[in-house]
Amino acid sequence: MHLSELTHPNQLHGLSIYQLQQMARQIREKHLQTVAASGGHLGPGLGVVELTLALYQTLDLDRDKVTWDVGHQAYPHKLITGRYARFHTLRQKDGIAGYLKRCESKFDHFGAGHASTSISSALGMALARDMQGEDYKVVAVIGDGALTGGMALEAINHAGHLPKTNLLVVLNDNEMSISPNVGAIPRYLNKMRLSAPVQFISENLEEQFKHLPFVGESLAPEIGRVKEGMKRLAVPKVGAVFEELGFTYVGPIDGHNLQELITTFQQAHKHPGPVLVHVATTKGKGYEIAEKDQVGYHAQSPFNLATGKAAPSNKPKPPSYSKVFGDTLTKIAENDRRVIGITAAMATGTGLDILQKQLPDQYIDVGIAEQHAVTLAAGMACEGMRPVATIYSTFLQRAFDQIIHDVCIQNLHVFFCIDRAGIVGSDGPTHQGMYDIAYLRCIPNMVLMAPKDEAELQRMIVTGIEHTGPIALRYPRGNGYGAPLMEEGWEPLPIGKGEILRHGDDVLLLGYGSMVYPSMQVAEILSEHGIQATVINARFAKPLDTELILPLAQKIGRVVTLEEGCLPGGFGSAIAEALLDADIAVPLTRIGVPDQLVDHATPDESKAALGLTPPQMAERILKLFSRQPSAVSV
Amino acid sequence: MHLSELTHPNQLHGLSIYQLQQMARQIREKHLQTVAASGGHLGPGLGVVELTLALYQTLDLDRDKVTWDVGHQAYPHKLITGRYARFHTLRQKDGIAGYLKRCESKFDHFGAGHASTSISSALGMALARDMQGEDYKVVAVIGDGALTGGMALEAINHAGHLPKTNLLVVLNDNEMSISPNVGAIPRYLNKMRLSAPVQFISENLEEQFKHLPFVGESLAPEIGRVKEGMKRLAVPKVGAVFEELGFTYVGPIDGHNLQELITTFQQAHKHPGPVLVHVATTKGKGYEIAEKDQVGYHAQSPFNLATGKAAPSNKPKPPSYSKVFGDTLTKIAENDRRVIGITAAMATGTGLDILQKQLPDQYIDVGIAEQHAVTLAAGMACEGMRPVATIYSTFLQRAFDQIIHDVCIQNLHVFFCIDRAGIVGSDGPTHQGMYDIAYLRCIPNMVLMAPKDEAELQRMIVTGIEHTGPIALRYPRGNGYGAPLMEEGWEPLPIGKGEILRHGDDVLLLGYGSMVYPSMQVAEILSEHGIQATVINARFAKPLDTELILPLAQKIGRVVTLEEGCLPGGFGSAIAEALLDADIAVPLTRIGVPDQLVDHATPDESKAALGLTPPQMAERILKLFSRQPSAVSV
Repeated sequence: MHLSELTHPNQLHGLSIYQLQQMARQIREKHLQTVAASGGHLGPGLGVVELTLALYQTLDLDRDKVTWDVGHQAYPHKLITGRYARFHTLRQKDGIAGYLKRCESKFDHFGAGHASTSISSALGMALARDMQGEDYKVVAVIGDGALTGGMALEAINHAGHLPKTNLLVVLNDNEMSISPNVGAIPRYLNKMRLSAPVQFISENLEEQFKHLPFVGESLAPEIGRVKEGMKRLAVPKVGAVFEELGFTYVGPIDGHNLQELITTFQQAHKHPGPVLVHVATTKGKGYEIAEKDQVGYHAQSPFNLATGKAAPSNKPKPPSYSKVFGDTLTKIAENDRRVIGITAAMATGTGLDILQKQLPDQYIDVGIAEQHAVTLAAGMACEGMRPVATIYSTFLQRAFDQIIHDVCIQNLHVFFCIDRAGIVGSDGPTHQGMYDIAYLRCIPNMVLMAPKDEAELQRMIVTGIEHTGPIALRYPRGNGYGAPLMEEGWEPLPIGKGEILRHGDDVLLLGYGSMVYPSMQVAEILSEHGIQATVINARFAKPLDTELILPLAQKIGRVVTLEEGCLPGGFGSAIAEALLDADIAVPLTRIGVPDQLVDHATPDESKAALGLTPPQMAERILKLFSRQPSAVSV
Repeated sequence: MHLSELTHPNQLHGLSIYQLQQMARQIREKHLQTVAASGGHLGPGLGVVELTLALYQTLDLDRDKVTWDVGHQAYPHKLITGRYARFHTLRQKDGIAGYLKRCESKFDHFGAGHASTSISSALGMALARDMQGEDYKVVAVIGDGALTGGMALEAINHAGHLPKTNLLVVLNDNEMSISPNVGAIPRYLNKMRLSAPVQFISENLEEQFKHLPFVGESLAPEIGRVKEGMKRLAVPKVGAVFEELGFTYVGPIDGHNLQELITTFQQAHKHPGPVLVHVATTKGKGYEIAEKDQVGYHAQSPFNLATGKAAPSNKPKPPSYSKVFGDTLTKIAENDRRVIGITAAMATGTGLDILQKQLPDQYIDVGIAEQHAVTLAAGMACEGMRPVATIYSTFLQRAFDQIIHDVCIQNLHVFFCIDRAGIVGSDGPTHQGMYDIAYLRCIPNMVLMAPKDEAELQRMIVTGIEHTGPIALRYPRGNGYGAPLMEEGWEPLPIGKGEILRHGDDVLLLGYGSMVYPSMQVAEILSEHGIQATVINARFAKPLDTELILPLAQKIGRVVTLEEGCLPGGFGSAIAEALLDADIAVPLTRIGVPDQLVDHATPDESKAALGLTPPQMAERILKLFSRQPSAVSV
């Protein structure tokens, strides 16, 4: 049977090890070809091909439930659950998502894009099952990196306390998050990988007893006692932490040996209560280039399969915001030893790998642990350091309470550098950086800023370092505009001050961050239609430059805000509040991301779908002028 | 020396065990008298009197830093760090705070009110210390309940990986959060409490060697090897989990034995790297009534010291919102087995203890683990259950990402019941429920509602159970209005529909939740001044009842919103957005909590300070009418 003929995962049930190996080869082939052509996550999926096949051979996917942590390791899962034919549309608009989505397949039992959620969601399903008197199996597959996330540990604490709740946790231990893992838990797992593997010794014992004639059932109580004794003997060396926390620990087992995986999963399903199977896998398995460079091939833009090299770009691009951030922060840190870059397992994505390489003593990777990252930063700020918590907009949601409770209430100088703010493209709804303006704007003491381009980013980095108090800087995914960068000597910007970029009497365009240049483009289009716009680069969403904005709003009499973030509670909402508080009743049109989820697509496609391209925005504003004002508007 | 003469904790250094015992007695006396008179936390502080004295005798508080988790266990700390004379003002306006505050004392090294932050903040300080080449001590004191919170475990994962970073974690194990702890970690700790205590065996060995003449230094390498061997022998039985995670584990030791505590802390300070001292304490120690009822005496309203009984209330009060919630949910759950109440260690505070007692199978306490609570609920919702995540507004901040990523993106039917929304009173800024409207309103698919009184609360509970999708219900701390309650047969409310409570042509008052009745009072005062208000009970902040509100806003021409929450991004902001989107330019005055922290005081005092009493709000609205409208306003 070829992979393309597999329309339901239960078709795996009859296959031999040899046939599964063939299937594994085909999955890797398709996986590699697709990611090479379209880009996407590579290493995580390649590492769990055998794990997925073995697990699904032991499950009835019409009844049993599997939650896959993060979801980027679930490409093999997608390929064997009816999505082979459409797999070439991976991460493309209207195509297969790069993460799991309940609406995409009935086999995606729980959506994910962020780490560490799988045990909680699986335990919820397992408890629901027991309450409903059902008896299907529930399995969570979690990576070793995700296991260091606090909520996964909260879930282990809970599950380990429920000896009657059958739950299988499969620990996919590839020794990596995106970067090599840090922390005591990964080190502990590594120690176990280096020890001799321990199987279900007690189970095997039972099997052996069963084969003795006339012994079987009469010895059952005896076997129980022997099993317990064996377990005590066998366990302390390996997996003691999990055993002490109430899990039956099995492993580590070879994650690329189908027979070993299947036998272990079969035994694990028979075992009552919470069971953790520790599976040692190799990230990027089967593609030598990815095995050797596991950080580089965690995820990839389109590349040449033979060489592993990225497809050559047609024209040179300006550096990414992340790169400019990493370079600039490193230069500042060179001259100020108080500056400490903190990442939660995202060194390369955030550009902090530059700091890591050049000034390792001023760099901290805490693992997938955003909450701890922020409060650690708060502790450092208490002692006069200048911590820079560099976290994607979507992941900073994890540390919302810490931002309020540990940083802002105490008015501590933690500098939040929020990468991937706004539309993120093919990662889709779980990763959109839509909410940070809204969720940070409501917190007292917080300062919010966003640069119009990568040169202003540099100045805002210095601004954040020099300010004394909580301050957040948001900037988008992707490349800058080619604005000329300075090598040093950046001047901090005055807090809460914007700048006028263009003068015009008909409409006031207030652009924030990534929407400032588009605002200028809109103004050009408007100008072609005889409408002259004043354009302000707001720079700060909090505090607003009311001295600059309010008189102009009153004078010009029509305001449009432009932002790359959610409209409810966002930048435009802040402007509305400021106008109302000043009793300036002028029409205000808020342009941004409406109150909806934004699916995966290229950023340009998403913007077009949301009406956020400059021509679309200009058209919307032109309509305001062609329409007769209503009776009540000014 | 009497406690009142202790103005600096370093004065403890010279005291004998006997003198410290006297001091302990005086601390308990003052603690009990103060809380009996003013109310406050009782059990946590009484349990750590000896722990605090012993720890501070081994520290130099002019240099060393201590972070106290949650802060409610830090009353003894307050009493010996210069706040004895003012301690009678505990939790009162302008008095001593009930939690730690950096601005209150230089000895409050890190503020806290929420659980599980102490190890992260302490590790931040320890790293800062090492980067600055300093050598003071850093200590985190954390309760066993707080240790199950994810961020504490994230911090342990990080600290355990840093063998060169000296950090002492004191685990104050009283076997309780507010309620008895749940989870595998508390069970593990309990197991250790039941084993024989293990001291620094290896350290003691060294001490003994030192006393042998002529041995001392020459044997140093030998001692090292023996120590390691002894450690290996001694450790696996007790504390293996912490040892495997990189900590040197010591304990459990008797938390009420001053000599044992002092000796252990002294040895712990000498030990390099991360050390965890496990201290077994008794919550409420020294006050028999509190020792026997540890849940009841976690915190108390004013009470009679001799009897432990609460001071009799002058008049009977209507039931609290929490009680009505607990009663009503329990009745609904009786008839619908799919309804499951979930709490994160707040059974009594939320009223879920009623469900727990009557329908224990439909009740889940996950421990201090709000993130896990929400995603567990999401998993249950996938399988057709109706999970009710009952979490205080301030603690729900911890689960912000899970609300977005696991619930709202997947549009799952999780019902959030948000107690303590709005001004909470004497708990102060760390506990104010100010932000929930703003931080939930920006999330797609979310429905937000708030009842005008406890009878409407009942209907909204049914509404939340019947709706299919994410829905949140906020209600305040404290008692209802005495609205007549129904025993059964509640009708769900139509989603997104408000109600008109009063008609008038001069101003439209839009009240939300706890501000609806005050809006009616405001309308009465306005009426006395000849101004007639229409009053709307908005019921829903999302979706808004635009069909009802917008035509009235347009007709009446002046709108005032009233809410008990932060103004940036709040309910008034939602109304502003709706008016703008409909191009209705009418003056809008938003009344609520301005963009500032709100200190501890009684709720009435806080409201008066914020201008939120009905007479103050009426006065503000009257001013709008006496003023000439400016040129640009309608």
